[in-house]
Amino acid sequence: MIESEHQPVKGPRKRKGLLIVNTGNGKGKTTAALGMVLRAWGRGMPVEVYQFIKPPTANFGEHRAAKRLGIPVYPLGDGFTWKSKDPERTKALALEQWDRARARLIDPDLAVLVLDEFTYPMHYGWLDPAGVVAALQGRRPMLHVVVTGRYAPPELVEAADLVTEMTLIKHPYREQGIKAQPGVEF
Amino acid sequence: MIESEHQPVKGPRKRKGLLIVNTGNGKGKTTAALGMVLRAWGRGMPVEVYQFIKPPTANFGEHRAAKRLGIPVYPLGDGFTWKSKDPERTKALALEQWDRARARLIDPDLAVLVLDEFTYPMHYGWLDPAGVVAALQGRRPMLHVVVTGRYAPPELVEAADLVTEMTLIKHPYREQGIKAQPGVEF
Repeated sequence: MIESEHQPVKGPRKRKGLLIVNTGNGKGKTTAALGMVLRAWGRGMPVEVYQFIKPPTANFGEHRAAKRLGIPVYPLGDGFTWKSKDPERTKALALEQWDRARARLIDPDLAVLVLDEFTYPMHYGWLDPAGVVAALQGRRPMLHVVVTGRYAPPELVEAADLVTEMTLIKHPYREQGIKAQPGVEF
Repeated sequence: MIESEHQPVKGPRKRKGLLIVNTGNGKGKTTAALGMVLRAWGRGMPVEVYQFIKPPTANFGEHRAAKRLGIPVYPLGDGFTWKSKDPERTKALALEQWDRARARLIDPDLAVLVLDEFTYPMHYGWLDPAGVVAALQGRRPMLHVVVTGRYAPPELVEAADLVTEMTLIKHPYREQGIKAQPGVEF
């Protein structure tokens, strides 16, 4: 049998909630988190998704799917980070979203919590990574947390159980006049 | 606005079906493909998934979810590649699966076709990558195809519109006696 991460691993039977980080400049960070959401949903595990950049009006494929599946997806951002015209508001939205999300860390009924693009509020200095890590480490032990976004801070990487870097090997079609494609890219 | 791959890109409006490859030794290759499946499903786009290694009895999170969503997922493998006790049968299963999958390349009603772990039959020499690429390039122009697996052959990478490498940065918990976790890993 090939050594595949997609097959159940034989061996120790211990379970714990994982802290998973999908980072890097490539594609697939949020998308892989959505795949985990789908898997968990398929197993009947309660999942919630908090998005830190996308505005509440976002209605991408994942939002439409989540609505149909009954999975709570909460976007609360204004689509901006460092290029915001109102940085204080952008920061305030991120802090408000983190307050909401961190309250979920101890819910006994939640199995998977996705913090989408959550690296940016740390990267831009709005949230202290050490404080975030402390909160994440204080979560209910069986809760899986998935954090996505570029520039994952070292403290988060250090605390994580699994860190994957998505690297863009080839992405030529942007230069060919091809726009982002609904259904696969968003 | 941050340069995010998850937001619609302004600019050229041309559309085409993309050939997307998720490769590398890290996690998230199949998982990101599942995220695309979820997005496409959310937009009402017909999706089918052909799995080349997982056996027909596989009932992981993605299979359970797909069944509930009405997304066809066809596993046809015996869980083995080069360690197979019956290499001829393993190879025959892969060829049979490719015959089935390639027939879907021209279906006008299909929007997204996922070929999960399809790199392995090429890597192990059961399928000629040049022939596979020719078949993929002959697909219906608007069809998106997503190929996952390690060791993506150069011909496939060359032909692809988007190639992402998933790299394992950190994965310590296997050594801590933590087993693969249902719902997020499979």
